[in-house]
Amino acid sequence: MTLTRREFAKLGALSLGARFVPTLNAQAPQKKIGYAVIGLGVIAGHFMRGVLDTANSQITGLVSGHRDKADRIAAQYGVASNCIYDYENFDQIAHNPAIDAVYVALPNSMHAEYTIRAAKAGKHVLCEKPMSTNVAEAEAMIAACKAANVKLMIAYRCLYEPTNLRAVKLIRDGALGQVQAIESSFGFNIGPGQWRTNKKLAGGGPLFDVGIYSLSACRYLTGEDPEHIAAFASTIDHDGRFAEVEENVSWTMRFPSGIVASCNTTYGAPMEGCFRVHGSKGWLQVDEAFSYDGLRLTADFSGTKLDEPNPAKDPSHFTAEAGHFSRNIQDGTEPRASGEVGLKDMRYITEIYRSAGIAI
Amino acid sequence: MTLTRREFAKLGALSLGARFVPTLNAQAPQKKIGYAVIGLGVIAGHFMRGVLDTANSQITGLVSGHRDKADRIAAQYGVASNCIYDYENFDQIAHNPAIDAVYVALPNSMHAEYTIRAAKAGKHVLCEKPMSTNVAEAEAMIAACKAANVKLMIAYRCLYEPTNLRAVKLIRDGALGQVQAIESSFGFNIGPGQWRTNKKLAGGGPLFDVGIYSLSACRYLTGEDPEHIAAFASTIDHDGRFAEVEENVSWTMRFPSGIVASCNTTYGAPMEGCFRVHGSKGWLQVDEAFSYDGLRLTADFSGTKLDEPNPAKDPSHFTAEAGHFSRNIQDGTEPRASGEVGLKDMRYITEIYRSAGIAI
Repeated sequence: MTLTRREFAKLGALSLGARFVPTLNAQAPQKKIGYAVIGLGVIAGHFMRGVLDTANSQITGLVSGHRDKADRIAAQYGVASNCIYDYENFDQIAHNPAIDAVYVALPNSMHAEYTIRAAKAGKHVLCEKPMSTNVAEAEAMIAACKAANVKLMIAYRCLYEPTNLRAVKLIRDGALGQVQAIESSFGFNIGPGQWRTNKKLAGGGPLFDVGIYSLSACRYLTGEDPEHIAAFASTIDHDGRFAEVEENVSWTMRFPSGIVASCNTTYGAPMEGCFRVHGSKGWLQVDEAFSYDGLRLTADFSGTKLDEPNPAKDPSHFTAEAGHFSRNIQDGTEPRASGEVGLKDMRYITEIYRSAGIAI
Repeated sequence: MTLTRREFAKLGALSLGARFVPTLNAQAPQKKIGYAVIGLGVIAGHFMRGVLDTANSQITGLVSGHRDKADRIAAQYGVASNCIYDYENFDQIAHNPAIDAVYVALPNSMHAEYTIRAAKAGKHVLCEKPMSTNVAEAEAMIAACKAANVKLMIAYRCLYEPTNLRAVKLIRDGALGQVQAIESSFGFNIGPGQWRTNKKLAGGGPLFDVGIYSLSACRYLTGEDPEHIAAFASTIDHDGRFAEVEENVSWTMRFPSGIVASCNTTYGAPMEGCFRVHGSKGWLQVDEAFSYDGLRLTADFSGTKLDEPNPAKDPSHFTAEAGHFSRNIQDGTEPRASGEVGLKDMRYITEIYRSAGIAI
C-alpha cells in the first residue's frame, strides 16, 4: 500500500498516520518515478543517460514518430514495447501506470501541446526550456497542470547545478558585498537548416534557445525580477540561415534593487556561456556556465581568490534535474524551476523582443 | 632656420625645397615638443614620467595653484622657474617659446576653459578624457583650436596602446570572421569625497570617467559609430558618495553593420576593464584592457589560440601618447584621437544619459 503525501497528511491529522510511517519510508526510495520521453533528439539522449545515474528515476516510456528508433532506444533503457507511443496514440499513456511523468524534449512550438496533453493524461511534466513560444501558451500549460493536479517543472538545468548554485550562495552570503552589475553571454554559430532557425518551430532566434540562460542567470544570481528591459537585435549574415529569426540580441536590464545587467546572445558566433558578477567587495565569474560540463568558477573578493573547476561530467546536470523533479513528485513539493519561473522568462523574452522591435 | 611643414611644402612647390632638406631632417628629431602640464594631480605624474621616455617631447612648463608643489616638480623635470604659471597668469604662456603644447589634466569641467585659453595662446592642446562635460563645450574646444590653427588631441591612451591595437588589427584582418557582438566593462569602487562624484566638476558619474573607455573601445574595435543606444542607470549605495552622480550605468548599442555591444560601468565595485569580441570564427578578449599596464590578450579562432600578456610597464601608454601627439605637431598631421573623436563620445554619452533618464 502506498499513500500520496496528501493522503498521508490526512491520515496524520486523524492520528492514524503513525502505523504507516515505516511502510512509507521503506517504500519511498524504492518506487522510482517512471518517465516517458517525448521527442528522441540530442537532448533526450543526455536526459536518458542522466536518469540512469539517479536513485529515484527511470525511463519507462518513449514517444516518437520513428518506431525503429524508439525500439532501439527502448532496448537500451529496458522500456517495455507496450510503453512506446507515437504522436497519435500518445494520450493512451493515461492508462499506463508505469509512466508517472513525461519529459518534453520537442521543438519549442510543441511544448504547450504535449505538456497539456500529458497533464490531461494525469502525468507530471518536465518540459524543456524555453517553456513555450509565447506567454499565452505558458499560461495555458500552467493552468492545465493545475487543473489535472500534476506537477510542472521547466528544465532549467542550472538551477540544480552545483557551480551555478555555488555562485548564488557566495552572493547570498555577502562574499561580493553589494552586487552592482552582471554581464552574461551565450551563443553559438548555428549551422544551416536547423529547426532552431524556423520561427514557427522555435518561436524566435538565439534568445529563445540560449539567451534564455543569461536571462535566467541574472534572475537567480540577483534573486530578483527585472523591472526595466531594453534591447537591440540584428542580422548581419544574409546567407539564408536567418530568413526567419534574428542573429543577435543584446539587452540590458535594471532590477528593483538597482542592480544592472547586460547580456548578449547570438547564432552567429561561438559565444561561450559566461556570467560575471561585480560587487562592492569583488567579483565572481563562471566560465562555461551553461555547458553540460567544464564549468569553472573564479572569484576575487576581500583578499580571497577562488579558482574552482567543476570536474563533474555530462550527464550530471540531467541526473540532478531528473532526481529533483522525481523527489518533488515523491514529496509533493513544488519544483524550484516551476512553471511560474518559466512563465516569467516568457514575459521577459517578450519584453526583450518588443524593445528590439521584433514581433514574436 | 626651421620651417613648418606647410612652409616647406610651399617651398617644394616653388622648387626651392631641396636645399633645405638636410637642415630640416637634421633638425626635426632634435627640436623636442615642449609641454606645459596643467593640473599636477596623479595622472599628470604618469604623463610627465611618460614624456621622459619619448625622443621628441619634454616638459617645459607647469601650471598649478600650488607654487611649492610646482617648484618641486619643476626641479625634478628641469623646468625653468619662469615657465611655472598659475591659473591667473596662465595666458602668459602665449609669450613663452619653450611651450609648444599644453597637457590638460584638470577635472573634467575645466577642460573646455583651459583648452580654449591654451588655443588662444597659440599652443597645441592634449586634453584628458572625457573631452568635456557636454557637447557644447566640446564643439567650442574644437572651434577654438581650429580658429587658432593649433592641434587638439584627446588623451585616449588606448588608441596608441599595442594590445588594444593588436585586437583591432586581428579584427580588421578577419581573424574573428564577421564580428557579431562585443561586451565591455570598466569601473571601480570609489572612495568618499573625490571630485569625480561632484557633478559640477565631473559632469556625471562613472560613464564620464571610466565607462568612456568601453564606449571608445566598442567604436575602435568595430570601426563604427553606434546608431542606437539604450541605457539604465542606478544608485544602490546611499552612503553619501552618490548624492550627485549615479553609481552604475549599463547600456547596449547597435552599430550600422548590425554588430551589437553591451557595456557596464560602476563606481560601486572593482570592475576590471575588459572587452570581449565575438566573431563567426571565434573570439578575442583583452583583460585589464584599460589599465596602465598588465594588459593581456587571449583569443581562440579558427584553431588558433592566443595568450599574449603585454610586459610593458606604466608609463609606456603616456610615452606613446605624447610621442604621437608631438609627431603630429612636427609633421602637421592630424591626431588619431582628434577632437572630433572626443566630440562623438560626448554625443554618445549624452545619449546614454538621456536613455537612462538622467539630466546632465
